[in-house]
Amino acid sequence: MIYLDWASTSPPDRAILLEAAELAAACYGNPSSTHRLGTEARAKLEEARSRLALCLHATKEAARGCIVFTSGGSEANAIALLATLRKRSHARAAPLHIVASAIEHAAIHEQLRLLAGLGVETSFVRPGANGLVTPEAVAAAIRKETALVTVMAVNNETGAIQPLGDIVRAVACAARELGRATPPRVHADAVQAFGKIPFDPLKLGLSSAAFSAHKLRGPRGTGAMWLAATLEPFVVGGGQEGGIRPGTENLAGAWAFSNVAEQAVTSLASELQHARELEARLIAGMEAIPGAIVLPFGRKAGDTRYSPYILSASFPGLAGEVLARALSDEGIAVSTGSACASNAHAKERRVLAAMGVPPELSFGAIRISTGTLTLPADVDRFLETAARVYTRLKP
Amino acid sequence: MIYLDWASTSPPDRAILLEAAELAAACYGNPSSTHRLGTEARAKLEEARSRLALCLHATKEAARGCIVFTSGGSEANAIALLATLRKRSHARAAPLHIVASAIEHAAIHEQLRLLAGLGVETSFVRPGANGLVTPEAVAAAIRKETALVTVMAVNNETGAIQPLGDIVRAVACAARELGRATPPRVHADAVQAFGKIPFDPLKLGLSSAAFSAHKLRGPRGTGAMWLAATLEPFVVGGGQEGGIRPGTENLAGAWAFSNVAEQAVTSLASELQHARELEARLIAGMEAIPGAIVLPFGRKAGDTRYSPYILSASFPGLAGEVLARALSDEGIAVSTGSACASNAHAKERRVLAAMGVPPELSFGAIRISTGTLTLPADVDRFLETAARVYTRLKP
Repeated sequence: MIYLDWASTSPPDRAILLEAAELAAACYGNPSSTHRLGTEARAKLEEARSRLALCLHATKEAARGCIVFTSGGSEANAIALLATLRKRSHARAAPLHIVASAIEHAAIHEQLRLLAGLGVETSFVRPGANGLVTPEAVAAAIRKETALVTVMAVNNETGAIQPLGDIVRAVACAARELGRATPPRVHADAVQAFGKIPFDPLKLGLSSAAFSAHKLRGPRGTGAMWLAATLEPFVVGGGQEGGIRPGTENLAGAWAFSNVAEQAVTSLASELQHARELEARLIAGMEAIPGAIVLPFGRKAGDTRYSPYILSASFPGLAGEVLARALSDEGIAVSTGSACASNAHAKERRVLAAMGVPPELSFGAIRISTGTLTLPADVDRFLETAARVYTRLKP
Repeated sequence: MIYLDWASTSPPDRAILLEAAELAAACYGNPSSTHRLGTEARAKLEEARSRLALCLHATKEAARGCIVFTSGGSEANAIALLATLRKRSHARAAPLHIVASAIEHAAIHEQLRLLAGLGVETSFVRPGANGLVTPEAVAAAIRKETALVTVMAVNNETGAIQPLGDIVRAVACAARELGRATPPRVHADAVQAFGKIPFDPLKLGLSSAAFSAHKLRGPRGTGAMWLAATLEPFVVGGGQEGGIRPGTENLAGAWAFSNVAEQAVTSLASELQHARELEARLIAGMEAIPGAIVLPFGRKAGDTRYSPYILSASFPGLAGEVLARALSDEGIAVSTGSACASNAHAKERRVLAAMGVPPELSFGAIRISTGTLTLPADVDRFLETAARVYTRLKP
C-alpha cells in the first residue's frame, strides 16, 4: 500500500515501540508510588518530560513552561477548552466567551458546539479563501469576557500555517484596547505542526499547545500539552501530571513520544526539504491532470504559508469518497479530510466551506499527506492512478 | 524487589505488550480512515472489543451492552460522571444530584468535589465499619432529582466488595417510591474487580462500569467502559467510539487489553484460589505480629465480602509512609493506599476515616496487594520484614 495519509496517522517507528514495550515491562512501578519501583518509573517519566520539553524550544535555556502528558491531542485540546469552565464556576453569573477559528479540528469544534448548550458562547472566525485566519479577524472577535482564543497551528486539511505569533500580539492589543488587565489565553492545536515545521510555543507567546505522538510515528493513546503557566483543569482525579491530567501515568507512551519527537526535531530541516520536493512534484502533477484543482486556489509549491506535508485537491464531478475508495482499491491510501470527521459528519466539508470553496469543489476534494517514508515514486504512482481513475469515473 | 502493590499497578505481561507493539507497527491505519489500511485496523479493533465484551459476561448470548475503549479507568469514570452535565444543559434550571459512596477512588471523589462548584450536589454515603456500603444507606440518599449513583465494585484500600446487585435494586425501589418513571443510572468503578473476582455488569443491573488494563498486566493508558445503553458524553470530538470517547483509537492498547482480560478471566477461579491462600497466610501472619491490626477490624481469611487480592493493616505508632519506605529499602513494595492519592492528599486517609477507623490507626496503615506472580515465600518475607521493622521503629 502506498500510504499518503500521514496527517491522519503515521506508520509507527517499530523499534521505538518495541523499546517502549520493554521499558513498560521492566520499569513497571506506578510513577506515583513512593516505593523504589515507583521512584524508578518516576525518574524515567521525568526524563521523558524533559526531553520532550527540549524538543519544543530552540535553546536549552528556553526549555521553560510545563509539559503535561495526555492520552492524545484530543484530550490536550479538551483540557484547554474545559479549563474555561472552572473560571465560570468561580464567577457563576459572568458570561463566558471563546474565540476559535472556524477550521479547527473536530476535537475543538465539536466541544465548542457542545459548550454552547451550557451557555459558553463561541465566535468562530472564518479564514480567507487562502485558508489563513488573519490576526485582525481574531482581534475583532475579542470581547471583555473572552476567556480563551483557540487557533490551530497547521490546518489538517489544507496545511495552512496560521500566523500564531501575530495572532497572539493582536489579541493582546485588542484586550488592552478593551481595558482588560490581562489578555485571554491563546491555545494552539499543534498536532500537525510539532516535529514537522519549526514550532516554539514560548516564542509564539502561546498559553498552551496540544501535541499527538502518533502523528510523529509514535504510539496511539499518547499526547502532550505545553503550558506557559499552570491552569485549572475541569477533569480531575488522582492528581497526576501536576493535577492537570488524571490517570496512572503511561510511562511507555511518554518515553516513546519523547523518542519520536527527538528524532523528528533532529531531522526537521532535512525532512522539510524532502516534503517540499514531494509537494512540488504533487502540485505540478495535479496541475497536469485535466480538471483537477489544487486547494486553496492558487497554492504554489514552496509557499511557506503552507505545510508541505499536507495538500488538498479537488476532482470536480467525482465525490472525494469515491475517488479515495477507488485509489484504495488500487493500493493507495488518501483521505477526504480528517479521519475523525469520517465518524461524525462524513458529508460535511466544514473546513473547505469556511474558506468559501463552493460545494461542487469541496465535494470532490481529497487530502494527500506525506511523511518521511514517502518516496517520489509514490507520488508519481498516485498522480498516474488518480488521473486514470478520474478519467474513467468523472461524468 | 518483592512486589506487593498490585492494586496500584501490575507487572505487565511482556509477551502481550510486545505483540501489541508489533500489531501497532504492522496494522497502522487509522481505524476511522476509510481506505484499506483503515478498515483493516478497524476490523482488529472491533475484534478486540468483542473479545473484551465476552470477558464481561457469563455466556456468549449475554454479551450485550457496549464496550467503549478509553485511556484508562479514570477517563471511563469521568465519562460517566460528566454525562450528568449534559442532562443539565438540556434543562438548565433543574437541580442535579449524585449519590456516591464516601470511599470512591480519587478519580470519582475529586471530580465530584469539583462539580460541587458548578452546582452539582453529591450525597456521599459512608460505609459501615466493615468497609461495606449498605443498599439501605444508598437508597435513603436517592432524591427525585438524583441523576447518577456511583459505587465502586471493590474498594482499592480494603478490598471490600460492595453489594452492587442489591444496591441497584434498592435504588430502583427508592426511585419508584419517589414516583419517578425511571431510576437514576448506577455506575461502578470496577478497576479492582474485573478479571479478579466474578463481575458481570449486566447481571448486576448496572448502567455503566469502568475498567483499567494496567491492573490486569496490560498496558498503561488503556481502559474501557461498559455501557448498558449509550449515554451523552460531555467531552466530545471526532466521533470515535460511538461518539463517547474522542481521539484516534489506540488499537494496540485495545488489543493488549482484550488479551490480558481473556487471560485473567480464563484463570479467574484458580487465581482467586491462589489469592485466598495468600490472604490466609497474610492475615495469620499479621495477627502474629504484636500490635499489628488487620483492617477493617475483624476481617477474617476467606470472608467472601472482601477481595483476597487487597488487604489493609495498621501498625499503630508507626506512620504508614515510614513503614512503606523502610520496606522499600528492604526490597519490598507496598503502599499506603492509592498511589493516585499520593499526589493529591498524601496525608489524608479518606477511605479509612469514612469507615470510622480512628486517626491513630489509619495513620499507621499500609496496603498489601497481591497478584498472579506473588509467591507464598514473598508473603513470608514481607511478614518477617514488617515484624522486624516495626519492632525496631515503633515507639
